[in-house]
Amino acid sequence: MTLTVVGSIGIDTVETPFGKVEDVPGGSALYFSLAASHFTKVQVAANLGTDFPESAWNPVRSRGGDLNGLRVFEDQGTFRWSGSYMGDMNEAQTLLTELNVLAEPPVVPAAYQGCSFAFLANMGTDVQLRMLEELKADTVFADTMNLWIDTQRENLDELLSKIDGFILNDAEARMLTGETNLIRAGSALLKMGPKIVILKKGEHGAFLFTDNFHFALPSYPTARVVDPTGAGDSFAGGFLGSLAEMGELKPDNLRRAMAYGTVAASMTVEEFSTKALAECNREALDNRFSELCDFVRI
Amino acid sequence: MTLTVVGSIGIDTVETPFGKVEDVPGGSALYFSLAASHFTKVQVAANLGTDFPESAWNPVRSRGGDLNGLRVFEDQGTFRWSGSYMGDMNEAQTLLTELNVLAEPPVVPAAYQGCSFAFLANMGTDVQLRMLEELKADTVFADTMNLWIDTQRENLDELLSKIDGFILNDAEARMLTGETNLIRAGSALLKMGPKIVILKKGEHGAFLFTDNFHFALPSYPTARVVDPTGAGDSFAGGFLGSLAEMGELKPDNLRRAMAYGTVAASMTVEEFSTKALAECNREALDNRFSELCDFVRI
Repeated sequence: MTLTVVGSIGIDTVETPFGKVEDVPGGSALYFSLAASHFTKVQVAANLGTDFPESAWNPVRSRGGDLNGLRVFEDQGTFRWSGSYMGDMNEAQTLLTELNVLAEPPVVPAAYQGCSFAFLANMGTDVQLRMLEELKADTVFADTMNLWIDTQRENLDELLSKIDGFILNDAEARMLTGETNLIRAGSALLKMGPKIVILKKGEHGAFLFTDNFHFALPSYPTARVVDPTGAGDSFAGGFLGSLAEMGELKPDNLRRAMAYGTVAASMTVEEFSTKALAECNREALDNRFSELCDFVRI
Repeated sequence: MTLTVVGSIGIDTVETPFGKVEDVPGGSALYFSLAASHFTKVQVAANLGTDFPESAWNPVRSRGGDLNGLRVFEDQGTFRWSGSYMGDMNEAQTLLTELNVLAEPPVVPAAYQGCSFAFLANMGTDVQLRMLEELKADTVFADTMNLWIDTQRENLDELLSKIDGFILNDAEARMLTGETNLIRAGSALLKMGPKIVILKKGEHGAFLFTDNFHFALPSYPTARVVDPTGAGDSFAGGFLGSLAEMGELKPDNLRRAMAYGTVAASMTVEEFSTKALAECNREALDNRFSELCDFVRI
């Protein structure tokens, strides 16, 4: 089944205890589609400038991705982000952001409308609402961040009443619900509208909440975490990509999709930027999926 | 199989966002034996004063526990601890400690010697080494804390070379190994001697490391965390109690024991002091065990 992602493309500068990279490919739409394209046909809508390296899309293109929704601005640069991770590397310190082309909303090609699955990556909630209307997808998941929880709460409440799944991190869930306990936060988020809520906890794994069952996975046990940038969007891409491949939103598929999201994120963090995720193949993802199943089997 | 615990008994004063309790039963040996006695015969060695409420031992006694190693001091009070939990409640702020009877080492009854399993709860590492010698148990697990990592590193290295299993929390593992990544920390700890290393991560669950396999479990999804005091010792009690019940140190037993440890800890945190753990029965633990298996099944 086809899967559309609407999100950002970035040129990142990142420093971690393992080194520093400057002006490397990044952004939610890139990480998401690199992960999801291992499983299904991905359609990408995002803004970028001519300064973004075209070759970063090769893996998505070679796996059948549709890039007609990439809107290239001749007169403005790509979104830029600079950040630094220290200590346990669960959170980045943002050093610089330049919005550039992100000041304009993405444009969804007519051919993307009515797709089976869609992911609205982190963007202004007003833009997510507009994309939701334009896409008319069967099943829609969305992400958000602390900024929009603070500044667009009414829009966010409307969005949550209209989407099927909501993916956010633990700090955002606590902020949005006022609940410190994450199990309570998950239940509170379900009451806001979505049938499916996923709480990402970085190195501590992720929770999935539905009205019928809850599910938890630790992160894949990698001994090598070089750069966590894009892990959350890689998780969402592996999750929704494999869910679109399986098709039906039934419990066993959601559990398997959580594991594939976890595996995709584990690839991303092992190298700077998109290197590991771009270079891995389906067999490597399947091998880690099996390892993860064994890692958590009681 | 018989299981001996050597540890502390305390009278605690605890404040959390859910309230405050004063002068309630606590201590590692009490939490451990309350959990472990659901599964196997527990033998307890610990020091206390006449100010400790005798009735706190009733559940252990009624489940066949051997309390001959309780050494009651007429002229000194029980160890006292006062602490406060705030925010996500993963760590206590210690407000007061009075060592009292803990200044003396516990005494192990001759009848405890040669037991199948033993747990050396958090005590000075020099005392743990002496208990190890006296007990002559077949299989020994030990805990520690930051204080002993700082002040008794040579003793700790000796202890680690002599025990079978080591149970500690994530912060202690990072401190002891110098590794930020917990998978690397687990591997480094195995190299220090023990065949089995368990890293406890509070609300984020626990890891088990052996040379042959690694295993991870999230915590049981309780929506009610009232007081985390004793959760780690309850985990150790549920883990070693069920392991002693099953007998053999094989992978499937270790996985099941991790789940029973997780379940015992989940009981403890739902009420102040030992209330929930003292009042629950084996059926309640088994029900949560089943729920936990379903919670993590891919």
